[in-house]
Amino acid sequence: MKLLEDRIRQDSEVLPGDVLKINSFLNHQVDPELMMAVGKEFARLFDQSGVTKVLTCEASGIAPGVMAAYELHVPMVFARKKKPSTLNDAVYWADVYSYTKKTANQICVEQKFLHEDDNLLIIDDFLANGEAVKGMINIANQAKADVAGIGIVVAKTFQGGSSWIKEHGYRLESLANIASLANGEVQFADEK
Amino acid sequence: MKLLEDRIRQDSEVLPGDVLKINSFLNHQVDPELMMAVGKEFARLFDQSGVTKVLTCEASGIAPGVMAAYELHVPMVFARKKKPSTLNDAVYWADVYSYTKKTANQICVEQKFLHEDDNLLIIDDFLANGEAVKGMINIANQAKADVAGIGIVVAKTFQGGSSWIKEHGYRLESLANIASLANGEVQFADEK
Repeated sequence: MKLLEDRIRQDSEVLPGDVLKINSFLNHQVDPELMMAVGKEFARLFDQSGVTKVLTCEASGIAPGVMAAYELHVPMVFARKKKPSTLNDAVYWADVYSYTKKTANQICVEQKFLHEDDNLLIIDDFLANGEAVKGMINIANQAKADVAGIGIVVAKTFQGGSSWIKEHGYRLESLANIASLANGEVQFADEK
Repeated sequence: MKLLEDRIRQDSEVLPGDVLKINSFLNHQVDPELMMAVGKEFARLFDQSGVTKVLTCEASGIAPGVMAAYELHVPMVFARKKKPSTLNDAVYWADVYSYTKKTANQICVEQKFLHEDDNLLIIDDFLANGEAVKGMINIANQAKADVAGIGIVVAKTFQGGSSWIKEHGYRLESLANIASLANGEVQFADEK
């Protein structure tokens, strides 16, 4: 998605450890018009997939997720990282290891929001090792829901997540694919 | 906002301790079309206020916040509850006490995203005692930014937040005002 690649070139910062910081338009400050464009692109890509619900994870998945859900005319569910004190009902849990934060966390979704006849589009802002996506797939499996595909705003294809998703037979659509961050330079996969 | 009041009547649950659970369309499962209607209503209400940025708080403020920002054609910034490991720059911090969770937390915003010439619309999903809003006002003050007003999706007017905001001279627009949850019944302020 050219609009997104241009914005990454313009407004991102490469930090040590292959970390791409794009918090000026994606995951701290958010550009809502870019998020709407992202949502429209996901809706276009998954238009024929019979998606019944978007599943994402708080917090940074919510902005692109809600726009995709708006364009697909389906509800969005966001997995929570802490069980809210008001959530006394049955929940699905999954473990998520964060390589950036070096901590294991859990995410949860209230069981009543995911059903056997759901066909989920899993959305996230970022894909690196794919731990959050694996957690969401785990939750979809617990609910016996189908996974129509995975929609990622920015994927670092040189880390393990992209390969894992494809090897496990899921459809992956990532709108910007970063092949390398070597020497502090962003190189997109389609430039290689 | 009638659409919202109708939805609360239909899909909410009152829990002990004056807790209103509306996680089937607002803060766990999200209805994106309702969020867009909410965003449009905030944009209509603050259309003449010269808003330069929407400020909200992860996670549940993001969906209504991004829609309001989209309609106002301004960026959104969401305060984070944990400082991300990739955030090495200067941040504004504020304390937020959660009466529901009975814990004190902090929220933070990277300093470069809020400026002296900003005029902020502070958005949140829920207003009870107003602790999150106070935290965001605190951050706005640290940045020397103006506050155009506070936009709340659902306010429990019988708790302290609404009064505090008005007494401190801020404009408050809440789209559904709940005057009482006594006996497990939702009573809106305009029904009293």
